[in-house]
Amino acid sequence: MKQLGIGLAGLGNVGAGVYKHLAQNRVLLRERLGVDFVVKKVAVRDLSKQRDVVVPAELLTNDPLAVIADPSVEVVVELMGGIETAFAFVMAAIAAGKIVVTGNKALLAERGKEIFAAAEAKKVPIFYEAAVAGGIPIIKAVREAFVGNHILSMHGIINGTSNYILTRMSEAGLQFPEALAEAQALGYAEADPTLDVNGWDAAHKAIILASLAYGFWVDSRQIFVEGVQKITAADITFARELGYAIKLLGVIKAGIGERVDVRVQPTLIPKGHVLASVNGVFNAIAVRGDLVGDTLFYGRGAGQDPTTSSVISDLAEAALALQAPRNFFGFTAHTIYGRLMPISEVVTSFYLRLQVEDRPGVLGQVASIFGEHEIGISSVIQPETHDGDTIPLVLMIHLATEGKMRRALAEVEALDCVKAPAALLHVETFS
Amino acid sequence: MKQLGIGLAGLGNVGAGVYKHLAQNRVLLRERLGVDFVVKKVAVRDLSKQRDVVVPAELLTNDPLAVIADPSVEVVVELMGGIETAFAFVMAAIAAGKIVVTGNKALLAERGKEIFAAAEAKKVPIFYEAAVAGGIPIIKAVREAFVGNHILSMHGIINGTSNYILTRMSEAGLQFPEALAEAQALGYAEADPTLDVNGWDAAHKAIILASLAYGFWVDSRQIFVEGVQKITAADITFARELGYAIKLLGVIKAGIGERVDVRVQPTLIPKGHVLASVNGVFNAIAVRGDLVGDTLFYGRGAGQDPTTSSVISDLAEAALALQAPRNFFGFTAHTIYGRLMPISEVVTSFYLRLQVEDRPGVLGQVASIFGEHEIGISSVIQPETHDGDTIPLVLMIHLATEGKMRRALAEVEALDCVKAPAALLHVETFS
Repeated sequence: MKQLGIGLAGLGNVGAGVYKHLAQNRVLLRERLGVDFVVKKVAVRDLSKQRDVVVPAELLTNDPLAVIADPSVEVVVELMGGIETAFAFVMAAIAAGKIVVTGNKALLAERGKEIFAAAEAKKVPIFYEAAVAGGIPIIKAVREAFVGNHILSMHGIINGTSNYILTRMSEAGLQFPEALAEAQALGYAEADPTLDVNGWDAAHKAIILASLAYGFWVDSRQIFVEGVQKITAADITFARELGYAIKLLGVIKAGIGERVDVRVQPTLIPKGHVLASVNGVFNAIAVRGDLVGDTLFYGRGAGQDPTTSSVISDLAEAALALQAPRNFFGFTAHTIYGRLMPISEVVTSFYLRLQVEDRPGVLGQVASIFGEHEIGISSVIQPETHDGDTIPLVLMIHLATEGKMRRALAEVEALDCVKAPAALLHVETFS
Repeated sequence: MKQLGIGLAGLGNVGAGVYKHLAQNRVLLRERLGVDFVVKKVAVRDLSKQRDVVVPAELLTNDPLAVIADPSVEVVVELMGGIETAFAFVMAAIAAGKIVVTGNKALLAERGKEIFAAAEAKKVPIFYEAAVAGGIPIIKAVREAFVGNHILSMHGIINGTSNYILTRMSEAGLQFPEALAEAQALGYAEADPTLDVNGWDAAHKAIILASLAYGFWVDSRQIFVEGVQKITAADITFARELGYAIKLLGVIKAGIGERVDVRVQPTLIPKGHVLASVNGVFNAIAVRGDLVGDTLFYGRGAGQDPTTSSVISDLAEAALALQAPRNFFGFTAHTIYGRLMPISEVVTSFYLRLQVEDRPGVLGQVASIFGEHEIGISSVIQPETHDGDTIPLVLMIHLATEGKMRRALAEVEALDCVKAPAALLHVETFS
């Protein structure tokens, strides 16, 4: 039987899962693929570290380049994390003609353009199903299954930590710090949860999804990204009263002409939409194609086993690519799209929560400003109960450009009667 | 640029969609795949028929074998429907060494074993994404993305007509005949809806999904299949009171040892489960793998455009297979599983609705019989209001084998106090 020689770089949570499950499901893989998957070399940072997974000492090295240099290694699996070291490793693997499998979303989002150019030049395939949404085969779906579709939009709940936090805030009325602490206690959030809660983990995935759908790499410095840190239990309650759930949403949408709208923000979603019932650490991506219509892909977006499932799927692709050399290396640029739509020109509906003085005339002042900017208000919540001299004032705003809305909001925030900074969220109606 | 020569057999709803959209999305396909998809020959039954899609007369033939014989045709797309003619056509295509794309679920479910054996012998790939769940890439997901997983179970809402009917019965309180008439008026049900409402369309798809997950072809004559015809508005209301929705569910489950449980029945699903909110003509398949955990794939399960999306995806696979010959031809038998579990040994929970005489002692008589069979009753609904001398009596039954349940039910139905035939449905808890 054919062998596939595998080199692992990184033996953290996912690396250990890949090592373990390649052994456990080896018979199944042999039967299904006619290929024997054998790990030949494993690079770790610290050779002396005790691990749950037992790897024979002769396979271990603390030099990632030794994995690439091993002649029996045909595919390298990059699971080191980080950007700079991983970039150097992946570029070295490509230069050496080794197929690359990676689950590193930050690496691809920040350096994908260079990596895929090098892969194309050396004719070395790169596979990265594990980089977006854990075990959900969204890369395969968009790239292969929907190859005949113009992708009209993707809306993704693609950060499990944030979704867990928002779910618990909604279910148990927790505030953000309590829900985050709970997520950390359960292992759903890292000790340093920055990239999860500030939206950047989701943004990296959104950039990768946009690259697949629209054939170009969006510059991460240019996209609009907001995390869940500023969401309050009150926002979730107001949203519910209005018929919405709040989800951290990655939005990727074909805009006008060649322009593409890519952004990440906590967003109000109508309760009836399937995405609104995606709870806890689960991820889901709604994809709308011109032929296929509305679809949804749902599953675990992180964790050792689901991510391992995607890495093994990529290894199977690698085995196929080795047996049948092909002219596809992991990324297809095309000329139909090619430019990010500036956030200021994005048209959306809004949820706006202001903290205002509790006296007559305030709503009139606020509404007048929006009126002057020709921005329509579709509904207003002004709760009866309150404490202190100020009360929340919640407005639902009709479609407007983000730029126009921000200009009007700056004037509103300058009013004497408006106190704390406003909370401004997008509302997605999927129309 | 490379060309892919395509022959279409059948120019009905889906065939016309494929012809039209290959032209409309031609530039996109060229850019993404580097291949120009060109239809070379189209077989139709009636050359004189007026059609929405305009096909040049020189491409048309009324002889399907002329499509296979055309030397410029590298891939044939079988969209004729039916079993016998389609079987002869597909076998002829394989014999001629032409790659086959088909959306014919009945053909594969009934004759898949022979077809794939012939394909394997001739080393001709067969692709059939369009055969299950329209635009949802479930074949690709199970076969490729989850290749590293033991598939523990699949639960699918895989007949859009039945799901539309059940949704309307639930939303609008319609009875089955009214909901069916509405579905027909809207084009969601065929003039002859037999295969949709009797469960067999779903059963064909379940057989195909089982073949992918478990590597053998289940004999269609041996599986348990029930449709939605006997569901009443009352059943839907009782189920709702108990916290469930009723869906026509295809169940494919790894059983004990090499045995696999494959069946189709209207089934009670807990309201909180994602499948319970799949409404209207939409399809969804929940797949549970040993690594990936719980996933769900959702989308349009039928219709010209979604099905075309899957056919084009298969054509892209065909183009790749022509460029890079591979050792995979569409089906992988394996030895881990291999036998259908008899329905009598399937363990499940049940919903049972009896029509009984309205007098004291009836519940006692019924409950005694279940007690003698050691079958546990978890809850009972006996509505206060009624007309006539009989009333409905609804029981929720704990886990029992279908065989034991049927034996007990036969005794219950023989009681003088039990009148009309009982309604017995499975309850799926996804535990």
